[in-house]
Amino acid sequence: MPSGTVESPPSTLVGRNLFPHRHLLGIAPLKPWEIRFLLDQAEHWVGINRSGTRKHDDRLKGLTQINAFFENSTRTLLSFEIAGKRLGADVVNMHAAQSSVKKGETLIDTAVTLNAMRADVIVIRHGSSGAVQLIADKVDCPVLNAGDGWHEHPTQALLDALTIRRRRGYIEGQIVTICGDVLHSRVARSNMLSLAALGAQVRVVAPPTLMPAEVECMGATPYTSFDAALDGADVVMMLRIQNERMDGGFIPSTREYHRLYGLTPERLALAKPDVLVMHPGPMNRGVEIDSAVADHPDHSAITEQVEMGVAVRMACLDVLTRGRRGVEGWS
Amino acid sequence: MPSGTVESPPSTLVGRNLFPHRHLLGIAPLKPWEIRFLLDQAEHWVGINRSGTRKHDDRLKGLTQINAFFENSTRTLLSFEIAGKRLGADVVNMHAAQSSVKKGETLIDTAVTLNAMRADVIVIRHGSSGAVQLIADKVDCPVLNAGDGWHEHPTQALLDALTIRRRRGYIEGQIVTICGDVLHSRVARSNMLSLAALGAQVRVVAPPTLMPAEVECMGATPYTSFDAALDGADVVMMLRIQNERMDGGFIPSTREYHRLYGLTPERLALAKPDVLVMHPGPMNRGVEIDSAVADHPDHSAITEQVEMGVAVRMACLDVLTRGRRGVEGWS
Amino acid sequence: MPSGTVESPPSTLVGRNLFPHRHLLGIAPLKPWEIRFLLDQAEHWVGINRSGTRKHDDRLKGLTQINAFFENSTRTLLSFEIAGKRLGADVVNMHAAQSSVKKGETLIDTAVTLNAMRADVIVIRHGSSGAVQLIADKVDCPVLNAGDGWHEHPTQALLDALTIRRRRGYIEGQIVTICGDVLHSRVARSNMLSLAALGAQVRVVAPPTLMPAEVECMGATPYTSFDAALDGADVVMMLRIQNERMDGGFIPSTREYHRLYGLTPERLALAKPDVLVMHPGPMNRGVEIDSAVADHPDHSAITEQVEMGVAVRMACLDVLTRGRRGVEGWS
Repeated sequence: MPSGTVESPPSTLVGRNLFPHRHLLGIAPLKPWEIRFLLDQAEHWVGINRSGTRKHDDRLKGLTQINAFFENSTRTLLSFEIAGKRLGADVVNMHAAQSSVKKGETLIDTAVTLNAMRADVIVIRHGSSGAVQLIADKVDCPVLNAGDGWHEHPTQALLDALTIRRRRGYIEGQIVTICGDVLHSRVARSNMLSLAALGAQVRVVAPPTLMPAEVECMGATPYTSFDAALDGADVVMMLRIQNERMDGGFIPSTREYHRLYGLTPERLALAKPDVLVMHPGPMNRGVEIDSAVADHPDHSAITEQVEMGVAVRMACLDVLTRGRRGVEGWS
Repeated sequence: MPSGTVESPPSTLVGRNLFPHRHLLGIAPLKPWEIRFLLDQAEHWVGINRSGTRKHDDRLKGLTQINAFFENSTRTLLSFEIAGKRLGADVVNMHAAQSSVKKGETLIDTAVTLNAMRADVIVIRHGSSGAVQLIADKVDCPVLNAGDGWHEHPTQALLDALTIRRRRGYIEGQIVTICGDVLHSRVARSNMLSLAALGAQVRVVAPPTLMPAEVECMGATPYTSFDAALDGADVVMMLRIQNERMDGGFIPSTREYHRLYGLTPERLALAKPDVLVMHPGPMNRGVEIDSAVADHPDHSAITEQVEMGVAVRMACLDVLTRGRRGVEGWS
Repeated sequence: MPSGTVESPPSTLVGRNLFPHRHLLGIAPLKPWEIRFLLDQAEHWVGINRSGTRKHDDRLKGLTQINAFFENSTRTLLSFEIAGKRLGADVVNMHAAQSSVKKGETLIDTAVTLNAMRADVIVIRHGSSGAVQLIADKVDCPVLNAGDGWHEHPTQALLDALTIRRRRGYIEGQIVTICGDVLHSRVARSNMLSLAALGAQVRVVAPPTLMPAEVECMGATPYTSFDAALDGADVVMMLRIQNERMDGGFIPSTREYHRLYGLTPERLALAKPDVLVMHPGPMNRGVEIDSAVADHPDHSAITEQVEMGVAVRMACLDVLTRGRRGVEGWS
């Protein structure tokens, strides 16, 4: 289990490549200081993005970024597309609906094709856990996981960590409660790994049928009662409840779900007075979260999460392509 | 009712911001000289677009333009996308079909999301009247209405006015006949407002079930007979008939529609000899308009409308973002 | 029948416009030295694309490239989009699914619309043979055929020729066997024309119901036995078998197809020891081609075909727009 206490980068790396990974496939392979390095880099882009018309930067000019989305996702695709274009890359989207995969092409053939077109970075979202790793093994360029099955969604965890760090100043020691369909949530998985690595105390609460067995291996503590999990929490992360899980054995109904796991103002009062409320979006208002909570001017950090998303993706695209761009000390 | 006679901008504004609106949501809020100002600006881009390879201009470089189309529209989307790219913006399309709105996200949540990604201008098409206003109220950047429900489609009215002005030299006093499903037409609505404001005499003709009650409030005169409405007309604007209105109580059949409201060469002879024929496209040839009319080398201005569309959208994107770009005198 | 022997460009053209065509609608209208000229040009872009971050070139800056795809095609669209963006063009995709054509607009109206938007080059894929010619007749800018019905797919033939030439050093005298549904294949058609023009000996083999009558007019020799067609072949090009042809009278089943026309390692042994295996993709592994063949490190040139595709499309976009860009000697 990651300790989250200060683990500095090896002194030989200071001033050089501080992210010695070719791809960003998940949070699991990252050391705490590597996560922190990405957050620090993202801070730069938060500032740039707020600077109005000077937010375009041409450091990725000449590079081809392919967004290969085998699962639809408006927000994440928009976020990666805007990030790449602001960095000056030639950004091309490959939509699943038009994809050769529908014609029966294997995923590896698709990977080899994108590689042969001389992509410089490939951003992938796929419905199957491990699909992104399969592609990464076949290409010469960095691969960025934009969500694969129930596995990981590392940029979501990074933007969530950045949001907390900016609001609180630090992550270590923060009590973070994650609530929802944890079993099927790559967002929960990446967040448990990232927050535990950064020293937070992570609690997860889910309907019994939607609680994975390995929660404790990821540095989190499972709860069955939402109220108990909220007690004294600094941050509450609500997960989106997927309609396809409803009425299907997992969850009896949206109404029942809201009664047991919906974040209401009353329930939120159990947490710390300055509790932060987060949601990866899009929200089902009135199901997993009440509007009074989602729109609360002090508690809600949901809009900031979206903003941090663009900054985090710019940081990842920049960092992962440094070697290709010949930035000194990076390979 | 707008007089259309010369109404100059306040002298204090001369040489300064001549379009003191944050958004372009419709023609209704615009003063006649503000409409004229946008047409004058568009003239510049007509020339640039005809100049071959020098038609790219980088004045929107660094700005993020999001085209959020909740309704499919090939032509209008292409036109706005080309306009933004020619101005150097980072242009990103959000397609309805992939949108989170389909997952139950509220429109306001979508607006807040686009805003958090630091869009500099948002172009919206939506099936519901008023949806664009709702979004405009929630974002920090200019919003351009690319058509909302039955409400308005201001850039269509501007490109139509520009087409007439370039062909005739002026709009004042022109007799313009608009024919079709006026009730459900945002194109008709924006055009009535714009042309009346610019001093044209606007006549509208529609099947009785498709004529709105408030035509006269928008400065137009309702006609029941197409022949009477064509008598002496300088310009005839045909509206696209939507198939979904056919056989549904509104209109008996396409054949019957053509007999009563189709623009044939015989009918066109009732108008002025140099009458101009317009259509917003895409056309149903043989239904609301005959090919002999649509393709007439002297009368038809339909292709010019498309060309003016790109110029008008470049003008609107440029004008609305001047404040953000720090152009002197603009806020 | 093209001889394929050296036919030099007229001496008056040396140093000037070596591709005196406005459009690239097919291989049929091209002289052998015009095909060679495009291949030579593409060589330049192969090198550029392999040069890492210096692969962006701004020679098409200011030009608007519209990719009008009336048929879905992930690979070809990606390839043209990447090609245009690497050359600095403002690239806009028009997807069939959103297209006005679905609303009943005629193809000619679509062409006139794209033209009025001042496109500088239009890339078209369409399900009907001849649709691309129809559009080319109506627009002022170069049109590039990205595949039309059963007619032609010229950039595929060019990338195939380039792949062979780079592997072999020359095309003249090579025995090339094309196998599959030749009747419905624009890839086969363009390749027969191109390879015959460049002096190869082209053999085609297909199920009897899928062999076109005019094979010999295109400079190829029809075979009924795949084994006989493979005997001594230098290159084997396998065509993708379309599922919609299966079980429909043309072909009994995928299993039966594989037995008769699938490229297995055993069958490949009938060809020359250094035989080259090609496939336009996406592949149906286990149907028209076995994985052991498709992935063979020495024989398979399938990945190179994809790479050559981007280079060939960059060359075509560059060459066809030279006149518009005022390159000396080009009109």
